[in-house]
Amino acid sequence: MSDSPATRRSLEVALGERSYPIHIGPGLIGDPAWLTPHLAGRQVMIVTNETVAPHYLARLREGLPGELTVHELILPDGEATKTLASVTRIWDALLEAGFNRRCTLVALGGGVIGDMTGFAAACYQRGVAFVQVPTTLLAQVDSSVGGKTGVNHPLGKNMIGAFWQPRAVLIDTDTLRTLPERELSAGLAEVIKYGLIRDAAFLDWLEAELPALRRLEPAALTRAIERSCELKAEIVAADETEQGVRALLNLGHTFGHAIEAHQGYGNWLHGEAIGAGMAMAAELSRRLGWLSAAEVERTATILAAAGLPLAAPADMGVDDFLALMRLDKKNVDDRLRLILLETLGRAVIHDKTPRAQLEELLASFPRR
Amino acid sequence: MSDSPATRRSLEVALGERSYPIHIGPGLIGDPAWLTPHLAGRQVMIVTNETVAPHYLARLREGLPGELTVHELILPDGEATKTLASVTRIWDALLEAGFNRRCTLVALGGGVIGDMTGFAAACYQRGVAFVQVPTTLLAQVDSSVGGKTGVNHPLGKNMIGAFWQPRAVLIDTDTLRTLPERELSAGLAEVIKYGLIRDAAFLDWLEAELPALRRLEPAALTRAIERSCELKAEIVAADETEQGVRALLNLGHTFGHAIEAHQGYGNWLHGEAIGAGMAMAAELSRRLGWLSAAEVERTATILAAAGLPLAAPADMGVDDFLALMRLDKKNVDDRLRLILLETLGRAVIHDKTPRAQLEELLASFPRR
Repeated sequence: MSDSPATRRSLEVALGERSYPIHIGPGLIGDPAWLTPHLAGRQVMIVTNETVAPHYLARLREGLPGELTVHELILPDGEATKTLASVTRIWDALLEAGFNRRCTLVALGGGVIGDMTGFAAACYQRGVAFVQVPTTLLAQVDSSVGGKTGVNHPLGKNMIGAFWQPRAVLIDTDTLRTLPERELSAGLAEVIKYGLIRDAAFLDWLEAELPALRRLEPAALTRAIERSCELKAEIVAADETEQGVRALLNLGHTFGHAIEAHQGYGNWLHGEAIGAGMAMAAELSRRLGWLSAAEVERTATILAAAGLPLAAPADMGVDDFLALMRLDKKNVDDRLRLILLETLGRAVIHDKTPRAQLEELLASFPRR
Repeated sequence: MSDSPATRRSLEVALGERSYPIHIGPGLIGDPAWLTPHLAGRQVMIVTNETVAPHYLARLREGLPGELTVHELILPDGEATKTLASVTRIWDALLEAGFNRRCTLVALGGGVIGDMTGFAAACYQRGVAFVQVPTTLLAQVDSSVGGKTGVNHPLGKNMIGAFWQPRAVLIDTDTLRTLPERELSAGLAEVIKYGLIRDAAFLDWLEAELPALRRLEPAALTRAIERSCELKAEIVAADETEQGVRALLNLGHTFGHAIEAHQGYGNWLHGEAIGAGMAMAAELSRRLGWLSAAEVERTATILAAAGLPLAAPADMGVDDFLALMRLDKKNVDDRLRLILLETLGRAVIHDKTPRAQLEELLASFPRR
C-alpha cells in the first residue's frame, strides 16, 4: 500500500464543540502530522494490548515528538478483559505517573481497548482527552466512532460506561494486514449493517465488493470504511446519547448481545453474534410482513459472503434468549423494543412485536 | 419549623437542556409534590447511609407513589467509604434488581452519598437520572449543586468521577436538626467561601448572622443556603466543566485537599480542611500585597465564629504540603495554580506565586 496523502480520506463527526475528525488511510500510525495536533497537554498514555503492541506500539511512539512525556500500558487481549478492574489499572497507571487533567489517552487496539480507554478518559479527573487508533475493522467502522465507552458487568454487556467523544479517530488501514480473517468477517457484519439500516445503494456496492474486501484490496477497504463512518457519524450527530434514531445502529444487537452473553463474551466474536442477530431480525421482519422471502435470502447471502454465521448457537433455547434479552439497554419500561427492517436499506424501531411471534421465531430459527 | 409553602424557596441552575431546579425549605422529604415530578421511569433506587437512613429513609419512601418500584441501598457512613468499591455496590444492586435506562437514583445523605450516587448514575448504562436530597449543610450549599460526582483514589481525592447534573436538588432544612454541630461548622466554611470569593455584602450579612445560623434559626438558614446556591449556580452556569471561572470555587481547596489527604480522609472534615485552607489563602494573599492585615484578621474572626480551625495540622511539614499539592486537579502542566483573594469578595486564579513565597507561608503558618 502507498502512504501517499492522496489515498487518505477525512470526514467530520459534527457534534458542536465536541466535533472531531476521522482520518482514514494507510501509514497513519507513526506519521506525526496526524496524531500530534490532537494531543492535549504534554502527558500521553498509550493503552494497548499484548496482541497489538508488538505490531504497532513502537511505530506509534516513534511518531510522537520527543518533548512529550509518553507512558504505555499493555493490557491482556480479549473481551473477557473488558472489566472495571482493567479500567482501574489505567487509572492507577495515570495516578502513579502523576498525570494531570491536561493529558491525552491514546487507545491503540480493537473495540475492547477503545471502549476501556475511552471510559478511563471519561472518568479520570472527571474527563480528559483521548484519541482512538483502532486496529480492527470492527473498531474502525463502529466502536471507535460515536463516543460510546464502557465495560461489561457479570450481569450484562456494556452496563457501566459513559458517552465520551474522542478528539480524533485515526484509522490506519495497514493494520488490517495483521488482523485474523475471522475478525475481518466480524467487522464486515457492521459494514453490512449500515447498508441494511440506511443505504440500499451501499448494500448493492457491498454485495459486489465483498470478495475484494476479504482480499484486503485497498481501494475497496477505504471506501467501505469511509462510507460506514459517514453513515455512523450522520446518525451519531443526530442523536449523540441514543434517545432516538441512534438506536437503529443496534440492528441485530438485541439478539446478538443475548448470544454473546450466553456463550461467554469472546467465544463468539461481537460481529459474529451481530451477524446472526441481523439474520434473525431480517427473518422476524419477514414474519411481520415487511421483508419478502427473497430479501431475507439476499441478506443471508450477503452475510454468508462476508464469512459470517447464519444460525444461532445450538445450545441456546427460547428461554435463554428471552431471559438474556430482558436486560438489554434498549428496553424502556420492560416493553421489548427491537430494531427491524421495513425494507433493505431502511430500519425502524418497533415495540409491538407480539410475544408469541417472537417466541416462534426464537424456536424455529436455525441452530448450528 | 413550619412546612408552609411560603417558607420554601426555589431557584434554577441554568444549563440549557441540563437545567434543573433547587428547592429549599422545611418538610420537603416525604412531600410527594416535590420529588415525584423529577423521577424518570418507574424504577427508583434510594441510596443512603447507616447514619441518615434511620432519620429520613422511611419518610422519603412514604412520599413516593405506590405504583413505583422502589429499592434502597444503605451504605456505611464516612469519607473513607467514598471509593469505587462502594459505587460498584450501587451498580450491582441496580443490575440485580433489573433496572433499565429509564430509572432514577435518589441520593439521600451528605456529600459522600451524593458524589457516589451521582457517579453511579453517570455511568450506569452510560447515564441515568438522579435527584439529590442532601442532608448536611455542606452538601446543601456545595456538593449537591453543580454536577461534580466521583470517588477518591488512594493517590488522590475525587480523582475518578464525571460531570453529571441531577434532575433536581431538594434541600429539606429540617435535616440540619440531626446534624452534629461540628458538621454544621464544616458546612459554614463553604457558605463563608461564597462571600469571600464573590459577594462582600453576603460576607457582611454572614458576619452578623453566624450566631443565628449556629442556633439553626430557620430564616437565617434558608437565606444562607439560598444565597450560597445562587452564587454557586451562577458560577456553574458560566463554566459547567471547570475550564475557567468555576475554579474560583476552589478557594482554600488546594491547601485543604492536602490536609485531608495527609490526615486521612474523614479525620478532618472536608469543611474544616477548607476552613484552614482559606485562612492560608488569605494569608498568602496578604503576602502578595492584596489583602491588608486587617482583612486577614477579619477573615479569621469570621471563620472562628463559624467554629472552624484556623491552624494547619501539627504533624504536616512544608514537604508534606508540597508533595500532596502536586496532584491537585487545578494544576495545569505542573504550574501551581492557586485561588487567592484580591480583596474580600473577589477571588482570582493566580499561577505566579513564587515557589519561595509559598514555602515561607507553609513553614510559618500556625499549626495546632
